[in-house]
Amino acid sequence: MTKGQKTRDRIVVEAANLFNQRGFEGSSMSDLMAATGLEKGGLYRHFSSKEELAAEAFDYAWKSAFETRIHDLDQVPNSIEKLKRFIANFIDGRPAVAGGCPVLNTTIEADDGNRLLRDRVRAAWREWRDYLAEIVAAGLKRKEIRADVDAKEVATLIVSSLEGALMIARLETTKEALLTAQSHLERHLDTHVRLHTRSR
Amino acid sequence: MTKGQKTRDRIVVEAANLFNQRGFEGSSMSDLMAATGLEKGGLYRHFSSKEELAAEAFDYAWKSAFETRIHDLDQVPNSIEKLKRFIANFIDGRPAVAGGCPVLNTTIEADDGNRLLRDRVRAAWREWRDYLAEIVAAGLKRKEIRADVDAKEVATLIVSSLEGALMIARLETTKEALLTAQSHLERHLDTHVRLHTRSR
Repeated sequence: MTKGQKTRDRIVVEAANLFNQRGFEGSSMSDLMAATGLEKGGLYRHFSSKEELAAEAFDYAWKSAFETRIHDLDQVPNSIEKLKRFIANFIDGRPAVAGGCPVLNTTIEADDGNRLLRDRVRAAWREWRDYLAEIVAAGLKRKEIRADVDAKEVATLIVSSLEGALMIARLETTKEALLTAQSHLERHLDTHVRLHTRSR
Repeated sequence: MTKGQKTRDRIVVEAANLFNQRGFEGSSMSDLMAATGLEKGGLYRHFSSKEELAAEAFDYAWKSAFETRIHDLDQVPNSIEKLKRFIANFIDGRPAVAGGCPVLNTTIEADDGNRLLRDRVRAAWREWRDYLAEIVAAGLKRKEIRADVDAKEVATLIVSSLEGALMIARLETTKEALLTAQSHLERHLDTHVRLHTRSR
């Protein structure tokens, strides 16, 4: 890796931490300069605009969050248990980038403007939904999950329940709402999603 | 109402629309001047700081959103049906302030900084939760709701499910995720919250 590439990567990491906590609009060029220790010219040598840097910083923050949430899922064979582990990882995991879920933060900031960022966060959400939907689809195939269950609906329900609970948790600075969402989702998965072969 | 009071109220309304769409950090003083048609001095005659204006604008946006969600609930006698109507109003209602739910927008912006705004949005969330919890408590008293149901948990679940689904809906620019949350919550209310006296 060249020195220029190393500097570029470091800028992305610092910008991801800054933007994910203070927002893209809430972070000024001087905040970026302070975080990276670079002058304006040094930053613009690597990125043509703040928008371009924000898009790369979002991708990095998302990759870091997603990795934290899925890192051990391969070790869980059953699809229902895999979904439960995912939920637990979302709540207990400590991603490398501070400031909460980048999808939640960036959606709210980009939904009324910033198209480049909006496209990135939409792609992240779809990757996330499809990943969970594939777990459900595999469970359907292996008859761990009821045949009338819609894979994308379950995925959407898990993501929306967790993101909404995270909003409340950040407001209250306690995990309570997340734990309520977790027990609700676990009960839902056990009662309405899991196929109970013996009881039917 | 004096002319000064009228101007002050108009500034709050315009600022609420601006902040709720573009964010507090994303709205500059010149955006505020353009939206209100006032000079900087004219704005500062009514508000000592952008923070003070943001707090009042948030309160206005919240009042408008909450009113849209609860306006017809008194006409619904049964507590379970009241909660369902609330959910439907959240999804279908058109509040006077554009840009989505002010609680969601403002939480994400204020969670890593801005304490004045954070206190306002926390108060709004608690008002909202307590309002829904009181509907559940009344339903418990009238034996419409199962005795083992926790009123605050149901309220938290409804708010978090709707806010998370709203995040996805804004990202996708379709109502699909909100309708998924609605049918999930309705089923949950009917299956696990409503007291079925005859079937027990």
